[in-house]
Amino acid sequence: MKKQKLAEKVVNKMMTDDAFSQWLDIKVIDMKPGYAKLEMLVRDEMVNGFNVSHGGIAFSLADSALAFASNSYGRIAVAMENNISFMKKVVAGDTITAETDELSIGRRIGVYNISITNQDDEQIALFRGTVFRTKEYHFKKDN
Amino acid sequence: MKKQKLAEKVVNKMMTDDAFSQWLDIKVIDMKPGYAKLEMLVRDEMVNGFNVSHGGIAFSLADSALAFASNSYGRIAVAMENNISFMKKVVAGDTITAETDELSIGRRIGVYNISITNQDDEQIALFRGTVFRTKEYHFKKDN
Amino acid sequence: MKKQKLAEKVVNKMMTDDAFSQWLDIKVIDMKPGYAKLEMLVRDEMVNGFNVSHGGIAFSLADSALAFASNSYGRIAVAMENNISFMKKVVAGDTITAETDELSIGRRIGVYNISITNQDDEQIALFRGTVFRTKEYHFKKDN
Amino acid sequence: MKKQKLAEKVVNKMMTDDAFSQWLDIKVIDMKPGYAKLEMLVRDEMVNGFNVSHGGIAFSLADSALAFASNSYGRIAVAMENNISFMKKVVAGDTITAETDELSIGRRIGVYNISITNQDDEQIALFRGTVFRTKEYHFKKDN
Repeated sequence: MKKQKLAEKVVNKMMTDDAFSQWLDIKVIDMKPGYAKLEMLVRDEMVNGFNVSHGGIAFSLADSALAFASNSYGRIAVAMENNISFMKKVVAGDTITAETDELSIGRRIGVYNISITNQDDEQIALFRGTVFRTKEYHFKKDN
Repeated sequence: MKKQKLAEKVVNKMMTDDAFSQWLDIKVIDMKPGYAKLEMLVRDEMVNGFNVSHGGIAFSLADSALAFASNSYGRIAVAMENNISFMKKVVAGDTITAETDELSIGRRIGVYNISITNQDDEQIALFRGTVFRTKEYHFKKDN
Repeated sequence: MKKQKLAEKVVNKMMTDDAFSQWLDIKVIDMKPGYAKLEMLVRDEMVNGFNVSHGGIAFSLADSALAFASNSYGRIAVAMENNISFMKKVVAGDTITAETDELSIGRRIGVYNISITNQDDEQIALFRGTVFRTKEYHFKKDN
Repeated sequence: MKKQKLAEKVVNKMMTDDAFSQWLDIKVIDMKPGYAKLEMLVRDEMVNGFNVSHGGIAFSLADSALAFASNSYGRIAVAMENNISFMKKVVAGDTITAETDELSIGRRIGVYNISITNQDDEQIALFRGTVFRTKEYHFKKDN
């Protein structure tokens, strides 16, 4: 319960502060300690002349999910290595969802697998991210 | 010479069509067959409350460089797998540059290493991308 | 049924021909079109002075699983990009299992996620591989 | 000078202890703090029926180079995420060389790019690895 409150508080703070996640218009669908599910609509500003979404869009959504999930315990965590496989095109008008799966969480390192799907539940990309957990905290009370 | 013209023509078309690369305000610094060097200014809309650039920004610049370099021969190429290591923070006001190094280019597959540096020539990230070269062309004359 | 026979035939041929998979003493636990589950015992020859398995061992088991799953349709497929996150130490005497999950399979490209677990069902590593499907076949009849 | 001695001492100890690197018959060509250059001959036991080297062989050589370079400062470092792109086939009889490039080294994290070439100086693979630097040391005197 207390951990859930903290996770929500951290994500609210991060979303409020994150201008780019706001530009992407990311919605937090679900949020738990070590877990995030985010959603966004792919707009015309995010696609190329073929109407196909820039690879950076799906990556950015997944990267935000990684940041929210890995920071949800209250300690500041930063991404070190991220990789993404693209499996299916995303077009303007698609709604894409990123959902995290925490593979491991240690004192200093966290590893997350993040599945990105479209509105038809088709997997469009798979992302894996490794974060370093610093010794700094989002809120003083968490120490 | 003819190949250089084609490379420039492809990139001009891709830039014109790519709304997200325009939003990022990417500048093409240099462009050759199999090579691209791009630059952008990190704006306030791209950073979080700590003034630190979202990981998706450096990724997106590198992904555009990958797209331009790998499409420069006239054939449409699409990214399959991209990975990025983050080495140094980027803050609002930084100018970041992505420069491609073509590791291999076959009939169907291309592999590129892309170095991302800041205005002080410090490497801030390293990206590697693998593209699939389709049998479609950007312009009919290239067939 | 016919596809299952072919998958088994391909894997038998690959195992017979693959001296390194034999040195690793890989056992094929399960095999279906687009799927492989392999197992091996980590021996003293595979570990360092701390008794910890070399990273190349888990990678090699997963790489064999990738090869078997992606070649199981009869067409020769070759790995292009593989990545692995290590989550838990493996020691001599451990039995490790690699199980594939086919994320996408197209005419020319296949993407697989491969989970590596130990005898206690703990995930010790996660591997993702991208293969290129050539136009060559393992057996003439498959054409 | 003292750092160079330590780097050599660490690598000697690691090589002596590492049964798998010995099976691979890895030769240390050059060794400096934060740097390693290793070489090995691809033997019949390492290839498949097509005479092509198992992907795990080039990976393992690069992984050993990563381990030696990142441990050369005296602190124990462990690989967290490694990725490799394969650009060219390796066959039995080839001599392959892995050479590290230290992209960044912080208090807790190191990132290395490792180029793998054959006897004709052709790049056959490119590997990137991220290590976590523990607080343990190889030798007591280094504390």
